[in-house]
Amino acid sequence: MSGAIAGHVSEARLWDRHMAMARHGATAAGGVNRQALSREDAAAQVELIRWGAAFGLSAATDPAGNLFLRLTGSDAEAPPILTGSHMDSQPTGGKFDGIYGVLAGLEAVQAIVEADIRPRRSIEIVAWMNEEGSRFAPGMMGSEAFAGQRALDEILAVRDLDGVSVAEALAATRAALPRLPELPLRRPVAAYVEAHIEQGPVLEREDRIIGVVSGIQGKRTFRVEVRGRDAHAGTTALSERADALLAATLMVQRLHAMCIETSEQGGGGQVMFTVGRFIVEPNAPSVVAGKAAFSIDLRHPDQATLQRLGDRIAAVSEAARGPCSVCVTELVNAPSLEFPTDMRDRIHRVACELGLAALAMPSLAGHDARQMHMIAPSAMIFIPCRGGISHNEAEWAESAHLAAGARVLAEVIGELALAAG
Amino acid sequence: MSGAIAGHVSEARLWDRHMAMARHGATAAGGVNRQALSREDAAAQVELIRWGAAFGLSAATDPAGNLFLRLTGSDAEAPPILTGSHMDSQPTGGKFDGIYGVLAGLEAVQAIVEADIRPRRSIEIVAWMNEEGSRFAPGMMGSEAFAGQRALDEILAVRDLDGVSVAEALAATRAALPRLPELPLRRPVAAYVEAHIEQGPVLEREDRIIGVVSGIQGKRTFRVEVRGRDAHAGTTALSERADALLAATLMVQRLHAMCIETSEQGGGGQVMFTVGRFIVEPNAPSVVAGKAAFSIDLRHPDQATLQRLGDRIAAVSEAARGPCSVCVTELVNAPSLEFPTDMRDRIHRVACELGLAALAMPSLAGHDARQMHMIAPSAMIFIPCRGGISHNEAEWAESAHLAAGARVLAEVIGELALAAG
Repeated sequence: MSGAIAGHVSEARLWDRHMAMARHGATAAGGVNRQALSREDAAAQVELIRWGAAFGLSAATDPAGNLFLRLTGSDAEAPPILTGSHMDSQPTGGKFDGIYGVLAGLEAVQAIVEADIRPRRSIEIVAWMNEEGSRFAPGMMGSEAFAGQRALDEILAVRDLDGVSVAEALAATRAALPRLPELPLRRPVAAYVEAHIEQGPVLEREDRIIGVVSGIQGKRTFRVEVRGRDAHAGTTALSERADALLAATLMVQRLHAMCIETSEQGGGGQVMFTVGRFIVEPNAPSVVAGKAAFSIDLRHPDQATLQRLGDRIAAVSEAARGPCSVCVTELVNAPSLEFPTDMRDRIHRVACELGLAALAMPSLAGHDARQMHMIAPSAMIFIPCRGGISHNEAEWAESAHLAAGARVLAEVIGELALAAG
Repeated sequence: MSGAIAGHVSEARLWDRHMAMARHGATAAGGVNRQALSREDAAAQVELIRWGAAFGLSAATDPAGNLFLRLTGSDAEAPPILTGSHMDSQPTGGKFDGIYGVLAGLEAVQAIVEADIRPRRSIEIVAWMNEEGSRFAPGMMGSEAFAGQRALDEILAVRDLDGVSVAEALAATRAALPRLPELPLRRPVAAYVEAHIEQGPVLEREDRIIGVVSGIQGKRTFRVEVRGRDAHAGTTALSERADALLAATLMVQRLHAMCIETSEQGGGGQVMFTVGRFIVEPNAPSVVAGKAAFSIDLRHPDQATLQRLGDRIAAVSEAARGPCSVCVTELVNAPSLEFPTDMRDRIHRVACELGLAALAMPSLAGHDARQMHMIAPSAMIFIPCRGGISHNEAEWAESAHLAAGARVLAEVIGELALAAG
């Protein structure tokens, strides 16, 4: 019967910590801009380390810049239970995406400590480096490196739009933190549980407080680069132009139409198609643009549909290029996945025992749990967010819901850490 | 009979000066990036002042940052003849656009000096501040201020994308130049003649060396701002989005289609429609864009067509906005104009006397002569440029053509400066 640990979760403390973290990268509109490995990110990590140290957690890092706060178990050699998420945000992000999973983990472990429970396995709260991928693309770098899904060297060489590499930004972040011991990548992990706001409207609409995440929908991302020819806007006849911007806007429209058509055919869920980044050169009002590049983020719960749509992007772009040339590069191809049934069942049971209305649901967004799923039994706990709004400065979650998710998390990781085997 | 002055024009000197000027802002691809009031612009001005001083020209400036090099006439009180153009370039510009008019003016005046002719009127070579409008939009700031077409305060307050104002950039430029006397704006001018590369294919195609510019086609420019709502790319259904980037790309396509349709109806020339700048916020691959803004540059030789098309932009944008909102702001509305017949006839006659094949033609691009036309008898001389390519690092003009244009210019301004009345 659950509850012994959950009773020690403090809603007020958890809320106060969210508001304190939201100051690191606070925007004028009430949101958060805390880019991976920025000054704000480092300041947030320093504060997190301090909070953990106050009740005995020891901090460590690894070569990918992930941060771990450990409660050492009675069997210090047994692979640990990991819980956490990420601390970085989108440029116009909110106060809960990512950071909730880290603070819920901290609260859960503090509840275990305050309940005077000494777990057999160590429990670690993890803050994964660069989940969002907005400064350094693509995201999930820290968990990918940890899970051996991507080579560290490749990650360290990625540069932001200012030309700063992950390696350089990581060195700057390390300099801003206390000196930490460095753990290896790909350590054995007994289980991973990640709490997160839903970032969709389902829990709110269905009036449930806990989402038991069944799996993560697949995602493919692309970079499309169009090359035309710079020309004078007043003297170059339309028929003589190779206008990269014009060709790129046509591609965006045609690709969007293809996705709308597939969604309208129904079956297996909605297509998510997003062009979020669009960059033009020389980007001057009176010069026909010689270069345009844009991003594509394509997601669908059905793996076959995702594969088929993604495979058509190059042909649709090619057909819309006119006198320009086009190059389509795939950056990420992450198929759909399902979390293990026993992990999902455990979360569902704990939620019921705590009297919290739960719902099984897929995650439409990607999360670090995708990477951890490759190397350890993993699971996710969702809580509602207002209007399903996320990646937006207006993102909001209720204090009571934050605490409810932390209670479920505390019981679940308590059980996992106490279990034999 | 012309020729006494033209014989002193040195093709080699003129070419060498072009190559020397092209070093200020030289790009790796052989072009020029010399933004208005940049360090490179200031360095080019310093060099120009030095070249003029070597044969007795005195430099001066005015409150708008225009640069004047004066050969004082025997009647120092008579309004001067002005000749020149601009020294700033597009970000991926070439070695001739603008700077040719300044260097042809310098060569013409040097030829007059070397021909031992003392003109009655003073002759001034002018380099107008910020014609291109790529760093500070819109362009033609210096000539607009000089001709009283736009208030100086308004110009000085314009900021570039980094937030630097014209006033601040002007102060930095002044600090880099020798101390210069300051002349007032709106001084009386007896006549203005501007030499320029054609920036179109007509002279080359027709095998003529001198274009006698009949007038300048009209131009309207707009800024279109689209507002939607930032949202998560993986969790927000397409039907629930207000995607500013998607709406903006549809607007660009619809506006382009409207212009193509008008051009195909024929009559009165081609529509020039350009979206050269496109800016997205937050511009992150996994965030549905909450904001998108783009520029429109619309030109047509027929004033009624220009007016009609420009007036439809807001309605077409409105019809394509979907769930977003849109705001269309007109920045420039410059109607078509014709240069005075006597000025055009003089250029045509001089070209004939020098044995240079001339052609009457409109200017499809805007030039500082548009502003000077408002306050003084003005004219323009075109020379061919290879393939009609301009606003491009590959822009090219033949040395012999540069010299031919300078010979015509030298005779024309010599006549104007000697004339009584």
